[in-house]
Amino acid sequence: MSASHDTVRAVSWEEDCLQLLDQRDLPASENRLRFRDAAEVAKAIRDMVVRGAPAIGITAAYAVVLAARQAYARAGEDWRREIEADMRALAASRPTAVNLFWALSRMRACFASLQGDPAAALLAEARVIHEEDIQANRRMGELGAALLTDLAGVLTHCNTGSLATGGYGTALGVIRSGWANGKIRAVYADETRPWMQGARLTAWELVHDDIPVTLLADSAAAQLMRAGRVQWVIVGSDRIAANGDVANKIGTYSLAVNARYHGVRFMVVAPTTTVDMQIASGVDIPIENRDPAEVLALGGQRIAAAGAEAWNPAFDVTPAELIDVIVTERGVVERPNTAKMAALMSGADHV
Amino acid sequence: MSASHDTVRAVSWEEDCLQLLDQRDLPASENRLRFRDAAEVAKAIRDMVVRGAPAIGITAAYAVVLAARQAYARAGEDWRREIEADMRALAASRPTAVNLFWALSRMRACFASLQGDPAAALLAEARVIHEEDIQANRRMGELGAALLTDLAGVLTHCNTGSLATGGYGTALGVIRSGWANGKIRAVYADETRPWMQGARLTAWELVHDDIPVTLLADSAAAQLMRAGRVQWVIVGSDRIAANGDVANKIGTYSLAVNARYHGVRFMVVAPTTTVDMQIASGVDIPIENRDPAEVLALGGQRIAAAGAEAWNPAFDVTPAELIDVIVTERGVVERPNTAKMAALMSGADHV
Repeated sequence: MSASHDTVRAVSWEEDCLQLLDQRDLPASENRLRFRDAAEVAKAIRDMVVRGAPAIGITAAYAVVLAARQAYARAGEDWRREIEADMRALAASRPTAVNLFWALSRMRACFASLQGDPAAALLAEARVIHEEDIQANRRMGELGAALLTDLAGVLTHCNTGSLATGGYGTALGVIRSGWANGKIRAVYADETRPWMQGARLTAWELVHDDIPVTLLADSAAAQLMRAGRVQWVIVGSDRIAANGDVANKIGTYSLAVNARYHGVRFMVVAPTTTVDMQIASGVDIPIENRDPAEVLALGGQRIAAAGAEAWNPAFDVTPAELIDVIVTERGVVERPNTAKMAALMSGADHV
Repeated sequence: MSASHDTVRAVSWEEDCLQLLDQRDLPASENRLRFRDAAEVAKAIRDMVVRGAPAIGITAAYAVVLAARQAYARAGEDWRREIEADMRALAASRPTAVNLFWALSRMRACFASLQGDPAAALLAEARVIHEEDIQANRRMGELGAALLTDLAGVLTHCNTGSLATGGYGTALGVIRSGWANGKIRAVYADETRPWMQGARLTAWELVHDDIPVTLLADSAAAQLMRAGRVQWVIVGSDRIAANGDVANKIGTYSLAVNARYHGVRFMVVAPTTTVDMQIASGVDIPIENRDPAEVLALGGQRIAAAGAEAWNPAFDVTPAELIDVIVTERGVVERPNTAKMAALMSGADHV
């Protein structure tokens, strides 16, 4: 437990199967689940055994390996037809994070050229996707930390660390890098209701990296800003539209409005696999509404009065005009808009 | 349980003692605690058996009756000296709600004229304080509801109903009155971390009044506004400074910033006993920082990763410039400032 968690693996391929660290049980227990069936992986994504846009994409890539292996065992050379039910199940697991669809699409692009048993070649591709994500995170960590010109207090939301990605993290990668470079004075983390990713996951990662972290109720962030304790809000994203609008964990938008009001800078950190150039603006990003029970109960125990309903959108959209900078592995976009996003995405890929 | 909760009593004097409905146990169980010792009441206020600025004030008034009865039993005519330790303990129970100090001061104003056993006269005064609060709430309910000119969606924060007052409620009184008059389309309630007053208490009151209520994570309020679902935010207050700055439950300030950004109107509902003309502006209002365990654990069970710290301010301050209207029992103050607050407070008391 004392090893750095910047390299903890939420998703891994070991012993010929996909392994997921069950994030529903953290920090109380570290249970690693094994998957050999793609439909079971789709269910695990839906149930949030694994979460975080990049981690969901990597998980889906490995799940395609499982699906192809199963399809080849059942149907031999007809595996491409046989695999489609699993491909649909994976695509239907969660709607907002575009990394899921990106990863499925990239894996599918390999299908045509494969001969015989497709598993080994698909596994190689999934491993490349995984490794590229880690490299992207390291690069974003450097680029984002370079933006922290003065010793800063930073506030983050949800979990964007090793648990949400292939490893290291997006927003939390910037925080790790900034802390290592002596550019961060204090790290604050929203607890992130209703699923408590901040309290359960972000705090777990930071404590084990010996980075001091102070949690707060999400609604206290405005007061934290007013008190002058933070100069940057640093968050991840589940999907970025072509105009730079950002879908991210519910509560992000409120932080952005408050950051603008208080003159606090707002940084979004996400790999280009999170950018969806097919969607013109944030209003068209599909937002997942999850079970009201996530708000009404905690740990299976009802909190709210019987008879009360709940509205439980898992994400919100922050308009580009509230964002100071989007950090990707291909570079940094200040005050994002459609033209700048197009230039970023059409530029040479560093990978 | 089917009777209207607009008349539930969080605080009452029955069977010769103070009775408090234990709000820590709601909505799971309705436990009424009896108090005959003033120091025990101070502890109950600190531990949030009772909460809500007006309810704390009324509780303190009844506690002075207990303190005087104990002091007279111990010291006879010297009861005025003997009572001071309890007066100090009550004043030290919680720092932010000024209604507590107001009630202690009003009870103390009776001391000089009393002869013999002071209990009966002090009880009469406490009952008047209690009854005046209920009447103020009814009046604020009418005044506030009259401001809802179009059929409105409303969002409230924390609990400001019968449980937080002598009965009926401040912000929740306006919502009750507005609902009864057909001026409210939908009621949304922030769950209100960390203590969950919205989920546990506000929902409990509204469900039992047959007013449909939809809970949301506090951080989702901005998205609710962006979706156009609410036209008013209606909240209570724990202390209003002479310039109209408002201290209220943590999260209120974030709502006010977001309301302004979205063109949603912002109403504060509080009796004049909540106004503190001794404090020029909100920066001087003492803000209680409560135990980090309230954020780090829930129901006695640790949620957050071991080693994480928490910042747990119980209140924040909303500057007057973000407030559209303050509703008191003496009248309505639009776009509050020092001059308007002074005019309100120096005007004839309607009581």
